[in-house]
Amino acid sequence: MFSLSPKEDKFFELFRTTAEIACEAAEKLIEYMSGEEFSEEKNKEIKDIEHKGDKMQHEILKQLNKSFITPFDREDIYAISKGLDDIIDHIEYAASRFIMLNIDKATDEARELGELIAKCCEEVKNVMEEMKSMKNSKELAAKIIEVNRLEEVGDRLSRKAIKELFRSDKPVLEIIKWREIYEALENTMDACEDVANAVEGVVMKNA
Amino acid sequence: MFSLSPKEDKFFELFRTTAEIACEAAEKLIEYMSGEEFSEEKNKEIKDIEHKGDKMQHEILKQLNKSFITPFDREDIYAISKGLDDIIDHIEYAASRFIMLNIDKATDEARELGELIAKCCEEVKNVMEEMKSMKNSKELAAKIIEVNRLEEVGDRLSRKAIKELFRSDKPVLEIIKWREIYEALENTMDACEDVANAVEGVVMKNA
Amino acid sequence: MFSLSPKEDKFFELFRTTAEIACEAAEKLIEYMSGEEFSEEKNKEIKDIEHKGDKMQHEILKQLNKSFITPFDREDIYAISKGLDDIIDHIEYAASRFIMLNIDKATDEARELGELIAKCCEEVKNVMEEMKSMKNSKELAAKIIEVNRLEEVGDRLSRKAIKELFRSDKPVLEIIKWREIYEALENTMDACEDVANAVEGVVMKNA
Repeated sequence: MFSLSPKEDKFFELFRTTAEIACEAAEKLIEYMSGEEFSEEKNKEIKDIEHKGDKMQHEILKQLNKSFITPFDREDIYAISKGLDDIIDHIEYAASRFIMLNIDKATDEARELGELIAKCCEEVKNVMEEMKSMKNSKELAAKIIEVNRLEEVGDRLSRKAIKELFRSDKPVLEIIKWREIYEALENTMDACEDVANAVEGVVMKNA
Repeated sequence: MFSLSPKEDKFFELFRTTAEIACEAAEKLIEYMSGEEFSEEKNKEIKDIEHKGDKMQHEILKQLNKSFITPFDREDIYAISKGLDDIIDHIEYAASRFIMLNIDKATDEARELGELIAKCCEEVKNVMEEMKSMKNSKELAAKIIEVNRLEEVGDRLSRKAIKELFRSDKPVLEIIKWREIYEALENTMDACEDVANAVEGVVMKNA
Repeated sequence: MFSLSPKEDKFFELFRTTAEIACEAAEKLIEYMSGEEFSEEKNKEIKDIEHKGDKMQHEILKQLNKSFITPFDREDIYAISKGLDDIIDHIEYAASRFIMLNIDKATDEARELGELIAKCCEEVKNVMEEMKSMKNSKELAAKIIEVNRLEEVGDRLSRKAIKELFRSDKPVLEIIKWREIYEALENTMDACEDVANAVEGVVMKNA
């Protein structure tokens, strides 16, 4: 039987909590895009969630430096922690663009990407949950693959949206703005995939 | 005499094979830009080459985790493997922009950058070939410098192309599209330089 | 009492010298933006400063490979050295955009961001100075926080400038150019923050 000491266990708890913060940010992004108007308050709420993410990363770093034993390589704990924080930063970045670029209303494609981001964050949270028992988890590999699949769906969707944009008769400024939004949303999916790949690397190392 | 065990040797083989895939992608990019029209099929071919690159990186990671002895630091093997894969990703990214941004025909500058990318990939492949005998290679340093030189030529070329673009009387949308293409091509050269620099770091460490 | 051997000490000297080069580049950027016209010569001067930065990073790498004992983890020395070089690269990148994008004259916001970058680089230099005595420095934490604070001021300023830009009646091409300039300047502040955060990580590890 493989079991973790409470001290090692805490890293998985911290990862899961950070992933939950990412889910919270993604849900806010969906809410934010669903309205008729972008509200500065909702924007600020996402910014506040981002600060919670920063604090978690700081906490993980602190625990890392206090720990003599870690459940896996320190550099990987650091990378996963940073990767989770990056997801949240990307959500905040994407959300903040709407008001910044003077956009009125989200397109259907942007909303669809928002839904995909939320699903992807949810799956990243599941990955963190399963990681705790990575030596005998039967679900972990499937969940990692699911993050990769969602990212690919998102990539195709954003590429299609940009392709249509550049063939539309929209004013140039509109094209530029939406091109930037789609890219920011797609980069958020990439950040999710990066975390899943980092976990996959850890699993391979410890196989 | 310095000699590698077959097990250590395999990493250099895998690097060289990945570099060859990068060369293949670069050649396709040239073909793709040389035509009168951008074909979705050729685009897909480059995407398929990218998937081959992903598989190689996965294979290197697998070998890395199975190996007790590695020819140099694990983190450097990982970095070079990731760097080679990044070159291929950048080529795919650049190629996919043409159809996405609704571009009709490549400019001479884009084609020149394509040629430079192919030369750069070829030189990266030579670097990988020479790396195998890095302790007594007389050619390795020169090949690394050549990658750096090619990147600098590419940087000057893309900066010049962008400078002329912003002084032209082209429609704004054209300017934006080409600005993005030149940047994507230049980033591909940067990715080649990153690999060369990573190899240089390994050589210095093991001098 | 904690004291460094001369050999360990040299890394802090090299860091401080690189930070000084960043300050020099930032001062040139301010000069460059203050004039009525962007001069190719001043642009070249910044490019030359960038080359000095590259040489310093190379020197640090060389020293790292010659040293059996280092004042803290090798990977962190590498990261800080690369981070300092990145600041200089970002300054050069930002400066080179003005002529490239055919911009006539810097806006007040761009100049303000230039001043913030210079202050930030100055503070990074102070961080490097204090780092030498990190075990008993009373100033180091405050200086790291100051870099973070300056970055946040810069972030708010650049976001505000972009927000106003997209609500102005400026021609689309002007909007695009300035959006890119503000982003390049903001990325430079981010690069300063990254170095401060890397130092904070080292301090935590060695607490």
